[in-house]
Amino acid sequence: MQPNWIKQRAYLTPNRIGLRFGGESWTFQQLHEEALYKARQLAKFVGRGERVAIFAPSTPELIKVIYGCMHLQLEMVLLNGRLSTEELAYQIEDAQVAMVLAAASDVHKLPQNIEVMTFEQLIETEAIEINIATEWQDNQTISIMYTSGTTGFPKGVRQTVQNHSMSAISSALNLGITEQDVWLCTVPIFHISGFSILMRSLLYGATVCLYEKFDEQACVQEIVAGRVTTISLVSVMLERVLSEMERLQVQAHPNFKTVLAGGGSIPVDYLQRAAKVQLPVVQTYGMTETSSQTATLASIDALRKIGSAGKPLFFNEVRIQGTDEPFVEGEICIRGPHVTPGYIGRFAERASTENGWLLTGDIGYLDDEGYLYVVDRRADLIISGGENVYPAEIENALLAHPSVLEAGVCGLMDDKWGQVPIAFVVLKQAVTEAELQAFCHQRLARYKLPKQFYFVDSLPRNGANKLLRRKLIELL
Amino acid sequence: MQPNWIKQRAYLTPNRIGLRFGGESWTFQQLHEEALYKARQLAKFVGRGERVAIFAPSTPELIKVIYGCMHLQLEMVLLNGRLSTEELAYQIEDAQVAMVLAAASDVHKLPQNIEVMTFEQLIETEAIEINIATEWQDNQTISIMYTSGTTGFPKGVRQTVQNHSMSAISSALNLGITEQDVWLCTVPIFHISGFSILMRSLLYGATVCLYEKFDEQACVQEIVAGRVTTISLVSVMLERVLSEMERLQVQAHPNFKTVLAGGGSIPVDYLQRAAKVQLPVVQTYGMTETSSQTATLASIDALRKIGSAGKPLFFNEVRIQGTDEPFVEGEICIRGPHVTPGYIGRFAERASTENGWLLTGDIGYLDDEGYLYVVDRRADLIISGGENVYPAEIENALLAHPSVLEAGVCGLMDDKWGQVPIAFVVLKQAVTEAELQAFCHQRLARYKLPKQFYFVDSLPRNGANKLLRRKLIELL
Repeated sequence: MQPNWIKQRAYLTPNRIGLRFGGESWTFQQLHEEALYKARQLAKFVGRGERVAIFAPSTPELIKVIYGCMHLQLEMVLLNGRLSTEELAYQIEDAQVAMVLAAASDVHKLPQNIEVMTFEQLIETEAIEINIATEWQDNQTISIMYTSGTTGFPKGVRQTVQNHSMSAISSALNLGITEQDVWLCTVPIFHISGFSILMRSLLYGATVCLYEKFDEQACVQEIVAGRVTTISLVSVMLERVLSEMERLQVQAHPNFKTVLAGGGSIPVDYLQRAAKVQLPVVQTYGMTETSSQTATLASIDALRKIGSAGKPLFFNEVRIQGTDEPFVEGEICIRGPHVTPGYIGRFAERASTENGWLLTGDIGYLDDEGYLYVVDRRADLIISGGENVYPAEIENALLAHPSVLEAGVCGLMDDKWGQVPIAFVVLKQAVTEAELQAFCHQRLARYKLPKQFYFVDSLPRNGANKLLRRKLIELL
Repeated sequence: MQPNWIKQRAYLTPNRIGLRFGGESWTFQQLHEEALYKARQLAKFVGRGERVAIFAPSTPELIKVIYGCMHLQLEMVLLNGRLSTEELAYQIEDAQVAMVLAAASDVHKLPQNIEVMTFEQLIETEAIEINIATEWQDNQTISIMYTSGTTGFPKGVRQTVQNHSMSAISSALNLGITEQDVWLCTVPIFHISGFSILMRSLLYGATVCLYEKFDEQACVQEIVAGRVTTISLVSVMLERVLSEMERLQVQAHPNFKTVLAGGGSIPVDYLQRAAKVQLPVVQTYGMTETSSQTATLASIDALRKIGSAGKPLFFNEVRIQGTDEPFVEGEICIRGPHVTPGYIGRFAERASTENGWLLTGDIGYLDDEGYLYVVDRRADLIISGGENVYPAEIENALLAHPSVLEAGVCGLMDDKWGQVPIAFVVLKQAVTEAELQAFCHQRLARYKLPKQFYFVDSLPRNGANKLLRRKLIELL
């Protein structure tokens, strides 16, 4: 059991700034009161503990709605703003939500047959009297995020009160915390990278400095002025921040403490450039199923342990399936209070762990000091600009086209995005690349669209006829 | 479930200093290895999970024995070094320990009929092969400390893995943590004030700077040189540190962050003097049953909320029995993951909580901002002519007099009034009884004025230097 975080935070540090956006700011007391009012409005439509979907850009209104939902102990399905209409329909249907809450600006992206309550309509709703829970159960679900595995079918991952709190606590024990902490959030709230910043803010009493979109100029201004202490970035964003700092010939303010860099490994060149502009980069290995970081590499080890994701956080354990030996590769397994208890919807019955261990599907090894190296991502995962792209999902989309007999997707190195997906297709009958592009565009988020289509006679397969995605690149 | 803290800490930060004593220091890796060796020696005599008593001064050897016991998951009864032989015999018998471990220097204080393994004998013991547990259960008991509470009968209080970890985590969320933290420990390890410093060290990766005895000159040297960042003190120790700093005309180093001041409220005068020498004082309300701090007053609130113990730490709840109104006095009740699950021995069957709430027996109130004020420990309450008289209030009045170093107040049976308060005073410089009477008269209602003043050399205190008001009467 834990206290209601929003209420407790407002009680403990009412006058501390909880959120900054543009020129405006809100104390934790103000956020609590606004969230309470949202909860009273939401209570007209949904009961405590019900499930809702949320679809909106990163604005203060989104934060207030999220905190309002938390006051009502609603399970929030965070919908990715980049998804196609079809992908959104799948998740909304699978999650069986009582209600979809969306910013009016984004409603047009949602399936037309779905009833939506806009944030603007919610503001007009009468508030009713409610009693909010002053305590939360550890196993209560706060958020649900969809992520695809080997099958290409997205699974809704539960993230509970305990998952989020132990993730935040473990991070604090590793990175340290002070009363002056301000976490710059330019990563999406619908991803665990952004959502976990909100959770840390409530638990630490730290300010969230929110931007609707990533903007390297604004980031650099905040970092140089000493108005933020921490920022979460993926590789491609870090590069843009570095370029901007180099262009302006500026360094990070001494207040600035940490770049938490996730979503795949960071090129050595970036680390060296970061050191020159006084940006301490901390690389991390995390995922939706672990409510953010599992292992994190201290910045002092950044150049000594190049390519490593560091050591587990205090309450976490990492091991390599089937071995205790250093330098032996195998599937990375994770255990700890931050690991999801499971899925919802179609996959609700599927166990997420074995004896408490999450089998990530990622391949890696531990060195002789216990530092983790992630060698290959699960199920041939492609990481493009920090977004996870699952080949199977794109292949499934292509196979739905009447002209496509077989499809295989893999990642191609890309200077800007790290990787981009490319597709290899065996045809039943003639079709143009343009038609396939248009077909995918209807079904997939833009970042998942193959950058190239290659028409081939056959795909590399093993004896069991299983597609060998890692051999696709040899067809080029 | 949690990882074995000692092993995990050695894995995560092997080269960080875990303990400093005199001119020596030990890394976490060294402590882990030495503790492991102790565990292998102890395993000759006790099995995993058994109960032992420990009786020794605060030396590195004690720390290694404690960590060794933790590797074996032993339940450690920490015996107070200032107890009488009779009191020690009671606790050892009540706890039914498998073994008593003691420093040779202290064996003579123990009951003669008890078999003791000295630390020195343990060092000579052959080490056997063992497998230590890599995981600990949340409800596993780490330590047991005896406390009398309101009844006068000492009860052995369990302090579990979860109690200690959530106490340390809650403290970190409140006070902040950094990699540079060094906690100066001059309070006894056999009290929760000292023992909790060890637990925080393991969880935070912070250095313990250990002293066998409190010594204000050494404390001041550490504080002024910037070699420590935090210190735990009780009021009387704080006064000695302040006097020494004033005598030397020195200020705390900018590295120094916090005096955590427990064991009763701190006189306003001390707070003002502390501010002048740059010592940020954080007052706390904690007890054995809550594995250290429950509520803590931030130093910025020290002079704004004089006499307050602050607000609860993040995962804790505090309420006043029978009321939700501000400023209404009643019994202080505490709930949270830091509250003991119960007692051992004679009181094993007695519930420590009601619906999760620990009834402390202490009287207090919450103000309109939710700050806790501890008015008095219930057992010390003096009832005089139907009026409630709280000794602490009278003592605070006396301590404001420039000639008074220490003051203790208790009730004396009185034919007319039932009880009357009497005062025991340790002087800094000469003063007449008449002057003190006049001084109090200005500050207190007539019924609160001490009927007698006794000038004494010292006041009765327990091992944590806490005033024992019930022993005052014996000074007569």
